Amino acid sequence: MHKINDYTKSREYFIRAEKVIPSGIYGHQGPAEGCYIPIEAFPLFSERAQGSYIWDVDGNKFIDYMCAYGPNILGYNDPDVDEAAAKQRKKGDCTTLPSTKMIELAELLVDTVASADWAFFAKNGNDVTTLAIMTARAYTKRKKIIFFKGYYHGVSPWTQKIDYSGIIEEDIVNNIYLDWNDFQAVEEAFEKYKGQIAAVIGQPYMHGNFMDNQMPEKDFWQKVRKICTDNDTVLVIDDVRAGFRMDIAGSDHYFGFEADLICFCKALANGYNVSALCGKEFLKNTVSGMSYTGSYWLSAVPFAAAIACINKMKKINCPKILIEKGKMLKDGLIASANKYGYDLHVTGIESLFYLRIANDPSLMLHQEWIAECVKRGVFFTNHHNHFINASLTEKDIKQTVEIADEAFSVIKNRHS
Amino acid sequence: MHKINDYTKSREYFIRAEKVIPSGIYGHQGPAEGCYIPIEAFPLFSERAQGSYIWDVDGNKFIDYMCAYGPNILGYNDPDVDEAAAKQRKKGDCTTLPSTKMIELAELLVDTVASADWAFFAKNGNDVTTLAIMTARAYTKRKKIIFFKGYYHGVSPWTQKIDYSGIIEEDIVNNIYLDWNDFQAVEEAFEKYKGQIAAVIGQPYMHGNFMDNQMPEKDFWQKVRKICTDNDTVLVIDDVRAGFRMDIAGSDHYFGFEADLICFCKALANGYNVSALCGKEFLKNTVSGMSYTGSYWLSAVPFAAAIACINKMKKINCPKILIEKGKMLKDGLIASANKYGYDLHVTGIESLFYLRIANDPSLMLHQEWIAECVKRGVFFTNHHNHFINASLTEKDIKQTVEIADEAFSVIKNRHS
Repeated sequence: MHKINDYTKSREYFIRAEKVIPSGIYGHQGPAEGCYIPIEAFPLFSERAQGSYIWDVDGNKFIDYMCAYGPNILGYNDPDVDEAAAKQRKKGDCTTLPSTKMIELAELLVDTVASADWAFFAKNGNDVTTLAIMTARAYTKRKKIIFFKGYYHGVSPWTQKIDYSGIIEEDIVNNIYLDWNDFQAVEEAFEKYKGQIAAVIGQPYMHGNFMDNQMPEKDFWQKVRKICTDNDTVLVIDDVRAGFRMDIAGSDHYFGFEADLICFCKALANGYNVSALCGKEFLKNTVSGMSYTGSYWLSAVPFAAAIACINKMKKINCPKILIEKGKMLKDGLIASANKYGYDLHVTGIESLFYLRIANDPSLMLHQEWIAECVKRGVFFTNHHNHFINASLTEKDIKQTVEIADEAFSVIKNRHS
Repeated sequence: MHKINDYTKSREYFIRAEKVIPSGIYGHQGPAEGCYIPIEAFPLFSERAQGSYIWDVDGNKFIDYMCAYGPNILGYNDPDVDEAAAKQRKKGDCTTLPSTKMIELAELLVDTVASADWAFFAKNGNDVTTLAIMTARAYTKRKKIIFFKGYYHGVSPWTQKIDYSGIIEEDIVNNIYLDWNDFQAVEEAFEKYKGQIAAVIGQPYMHGNFMDNQMPEKDFWQKVRKICTDNDTVLVIDDVRAGFRMDIAGSDHYFGFEADLICFCKALANGYNVSALCGKEFLKNTVSGMSYTGSYWLSAVPFAAAIACINKMKKINCPKILIEKGKMLKDGLIASANKYGYDLHVTGIESLFYLRIANDPSLMLHQEWIAECVKRGVFFTNHHNHFINASLTEKDIKQTVEIADEAFSVIKNRHS
């Protein structure tokens, strides 16, 4: 049997945190959002991280399949990325003029990403999804945006839901919500709102939370691409989460089409704080005409880190090895589940897998299994996709499957 | 005579940049925005930075009065901040769980900032001004926002202008624009839109571009504070630019009132990428209920840097010494201008001074003078306020005044 974690210090720190921070920890990482159920199975504060592992404040070690919700793609504290960043830091980071690292990074993205003729840098995925929508509106002089239900494109008011706190009707009045993979609905929307649709925005496949992830149906993106082109509508791909985990040339390239605008963040610099909007030549002047900037957007250290990260990802063929590692884990987990009579659904690309025990529609059984994994040192979450990083070893994967197996046996015994 | 800079390499790099980046360099730092006029007087790319100085790619050295547009408050590459950041980096930066540095920083802000009962962290000033507006709307269940003309609160659609590219009417339809210092207009707006005003948002004083900066008139903020309280309207202070350059306890504290929400970024961590919304206890639960997060918002390195930066600012009484240094510079510049018969207006707090030669309403004379300063190694800009940092020496100030004097003599000769 594997050791069961104790989280005493995490709880003590959380009591301190709640006094001075709204909800103690906000966002996905917080206990409020529903990724960490039951909360007693999860640690709340980290002490350190290295490669594929995090250690919490109680000294528990985890094989980390959340990878900081994406940024960790090469392994925490990757020596090549950290060295490039440290070298730049000695020269300067956030200064009055940009470093030429900005140019080098833009050139590298143009060389690497199929649909990139240029790059614009910011700090969050949200910054660049918002710039994409503003660019589409400026270019087309139209207002309406097509979304696919289950989407997540950041936290700006235009992309939130009307029943979310702080959102007003004006924020979302031009949004059209369609079902994923329903091209007929796309056609009908283009017909109904003829000449009014500024943009279609979508993730490369549906990797929403609380749902099995869904790949695009055959030719779905090709048909969406064509209807956008025919109607002078801007096609925006939000590759913030999947970027560099499917295809180094962009997830649109993986599916054989080209976006007009593509948004990157997370894996771009292995955790250094930078995001990028890339796009086609015909939109470059429109972006040049925008009023869009931020205090730290030209910081040189994250640019140096991103250059090192992209070069290393290309060198090791990162998406391919992440998918192979993910495949090995998926096979192991499914085989283990079968031993106990559980139907484990593993959906999405293997480097970005989503887990669900399908035997129990209430998801309680699934949550129990995840909890038993986490308590034994495998950091999964319940209703969010997971992330593979390049430093994950075959030994880590074997240990993960062993722990998952023990967790299956625990819930099997509990419910027999 | 001082050496005149050559910018050959800056120009060569800019040609490369324009090919792969919209407008080559975007934002204030770019030649498109109007801060760098005439553009031939300015360098475009930095090679390195240290203390108060930047060196461009042609090897020219500048005494830098833009401080990365604010982030540089202690001096570039401050050893104490960099050491704290490097120590944290070895442990981990952007990981799946937050570091307890997040709690320490929130506790430190609550101890330091008068109107802070809690803190919420993000990456841009824009992230936290947007959260402030969403919080005000969620708390009051109202839509309208009062702005003061000349404001800058970031780049989100709600705070841009209707004639800006990519903005639609719905983005700004609930905005009310009033003249700075016009309390009667504030009263009239509260009367006209009774029960509809969610927030008043303002910078602590009017430090807009292309205008002499204006302090609040006596009791202006006290009257605004009272009318907000009387109407259950949330008072938001955007201290992104002035924060920690007027008063370590917040610029509202400097003027003797308390904001409900106060936004920090720039000087918070001496250039490490972090921003903060702080606020009063009665709004904490509202913020807890928001859906608001970002990929890098819990990164630990900027938290460690911010803790070191705030502690050092408190130790050296940073705002006081910046104001003293600014005062010395202001006196020197005005005395020099007077020698040549120029009426130099130096407005705003001395640590954040705005310059204008008032003899020529066309501003051409002012731009010529700024150009002659920059070409000789004093990095001023034309129509934006400037920033003092703590590493600026008396020798730097004397050299600045010498160069400014030479620049005055050049334009005097040119126009006599």
